[in-house]
Amino acid sequence: MNQPVTCVRAFEVQEDAVVVLDQRALPAQQRSWRVSTPKDMALAIQTLAVRGAPLIGAAAAYGVWLGAHQALAAGLTGETFERELEAADAVLRASRPTAVNLFVGLDRVRTAWRQAGPDAVARHHAIKTAADALAQEDRQACLDLAAYGAPLLPDGGGVMTHCNTGALATCGVGTAAGVIRGGLALGKRFTVHANETRPLLQGARLTAWELRQDGIDVTLQVDGAAAWLMAQGTIHAVVVGADRIAANGDTANKVGTYGLALAAAAHGIPFYVAAPVTTLDLHTPDGNHIVVEQRAASEVTHLGGQPVAAPGVAVANPAFDVTPARLITALITNRGVARPVDVASVAALLA
Amino acid sequence: MNQPVTCVRAFEVQEDAVVVLDQRALPAQQRSWRVSTPKDMALAIQTLAVRGAPLIGAAAAYGVWLGAHQALAAGLTGETFERELEAADAVLRASRPTAVNLFVGLDRVRTAWRQAGPDAVARHHAIKTAADALAQEDRQACLDLAAYGAPLLPDGGGVMTHCNTGALATCGVGTAAGVIRGGLALGKRFTVHANETRPLLQGARLTAWELRQDGIDVTLQVDGAAAWLMAQGTIHAVVVGADRIAANGDTANKVGTYGLALAAAAHGIPFYVAAPVTTLDLHTPDGNHIVVEQRAASEVTHLGGQPVAAPGVAVANPAFDVTPARLITALITNRGVARPVDVASVAALLA
Repeated sequence: MNQPVTCVRAFEVQEDAVVVLDQRALPAQQRSWRVSTPKDMALAIQTLAVRGAPLIGAAAAYGVWLGAHQALAAGLTGETFERELEAADAVLRASRPTAVNLFVGLDRVRTAWRQAGPDAVARHHAIKTAADALAQEDRQACLDLAAYGAPLLPDGGGVMTHCNTGALATCGVGTAAGVIRGGLALGKRFTVHANETRPLLQGARLTAWELRQDGIDVTLQVDGAAAWLMAQGTIHAVVVGADRIAANGDTANKVGTYGLALAAAAHGIPFYVAAPVTTLDLHTPDGNHIVVEQRAASEVTHLGGQPVAAPGVAVANPAFDVTPARLITALITNRGVARPVDVASVAALLA
Repeated sequence: MNQPVTCVRAFEVQEDAVVVLDQRALPAQQRSWRVSTPKDMALAIQTLAVRGAPLIGAAAAYGVWLGAHQALAAGLTGETFERELEAADAVLRASRPTAVNLFVGLDRVRTAWRQAGPDAVARHHAIKTAADALAQEDRQACLDLAAYGAPLLPDGGGVMTHCNTGALATCGVGTAAGVIRGGLALGKRFTVHANETRPLLQGARLTAWELRQDGIDVTLQVDGAAAWLMAQGTIHAVVVGADRIAANGDTANKVGTYGLALAAAAHGIPFYVAAPVTTLDLHTPDGNHIVVEQRAASEVTHLGGQPVAAPGVAVANPAFDVTPARLITALITNRGVARPVDVASVAALLA
């Protein structure tokens, strides 16, 4: 282990609030946001102050806990208490559509409060316990999937990643970035190539920042340069995260992932998806059934509040795309590696 | 013809200067730069105030004329006059390495001054005449290639383009953007999809701006969304420009082009390269022999002077990439269309 496994923390749970690192301000500022209501947590998720599929699962679970905490403090019980939980669930559930982890987190605390019976104190406690367990499991899942994935990375050459999939996207060391950290910890020497990831530059702002915090060298390139770096022989593996993986292995991830997968396939470069099994969604048969969030035009036309595009243009701004399973060399999870990626291998991960 | 053919002009030749539209300031400001020395013209080209392969060919030619103009005004003759021309040629030749048009333009005025004999006045006149002819020929080449290319575009659906290849990149209506203008002028109804084209956002800032100036609707997307739009059935043709086309048809163009070509091929979408025959370089056998300019890290790490990336990152910033001929459906030139694109069809264009 010649690299630290992590240093940054995306959130901290306090007595009556969750303090999140406002990722919109990074890397210029390390600004905290003290979130104390479900509505504010939904806003934090919706505005991407808190982002990353596994992280928003935990954040949403804690969001319901904040609702329970408020309702308990207001002396609510029984049905009025439950109505607050339902309202918290509803506002959080509507915050973002694509990452399945959000819904998994909300379902998990819902199950917990239902199993806790009608008592408000017991429900409040059960929700907190469930959210803590979810976060702890995600932390462990990151370590486990990093251990499965690290041996797959090359010793030497370049490893490319997209968006942010690290400590700022999970409760632990990350998914794809966790695999990269794991590979370096094994002593492998490769160059990390981070795509900047337009429009919101999560690669340039977040991945580059958190890896530099760990002393890991990062080379940044615009998304359009990725295929050319592959053609030049600079890249020997691609590893990305996932927001939702359908039953057949089709994977929704940050927009740009699909083009990377096509380019990797054209160059015979292994293309890995790293995600905890909570990102697997067996209820979604394939990629055609995944809802891809369309986000505001201003994300593309403006940067830091300044216009960067000609006035009067229309904008297509899908936040995600879907990579078909056939382009994915292997799926790296906390329950092992699925290869090839298909209905059977995905199902086996959950068996 | 239901669309105007052009409106913006990238430069204007005056008595003793060339006034260029400073493209770095667009679309926020329409700022002019009065260029009166070869060194300033080289700076304008190097800093991308003036850019676009055909345009920098003409700009470089006028740059030598500015040197001749200065030398004549200083009363230089004979060898001292010639030394000024050589110095102008050298500074302009070193401004950017990839676009062949720059060298074609410089070679053209060099031939003109040599053929004009030793007299300084005659040389000055010959250089101006050669530069004017080059610009006029480029204007006509744009119209001719637009006429050849327009019938290839679909009626309905979407046409994607990359970077800026229009009136801001040529002396006329443009190359790929000229083909788009031509298709719309034929009455075809398709949506123009402009990739924003990081790092310098020529698609967002320039293509979107100049097409909107002509009343043409433009949809903008980040470069990473291009492949996904293709998968969604939104795109029915891709048309891009070129900075240098090797003898076998391999094409250097703005970084991101190669990834687009791979994605287009994967979806069976026609991928067209539009360029005047001055962009063909038979001295370069194939793409492996094309020098790809590497530009400053700050183009990726900063935007409008503000940092957008984590401090301490390394940057890979190739300005161009090379698309192999086999991925190019057809090459649209002012001398006709080469299809398939290979040594024979490229040579035939120049026969």
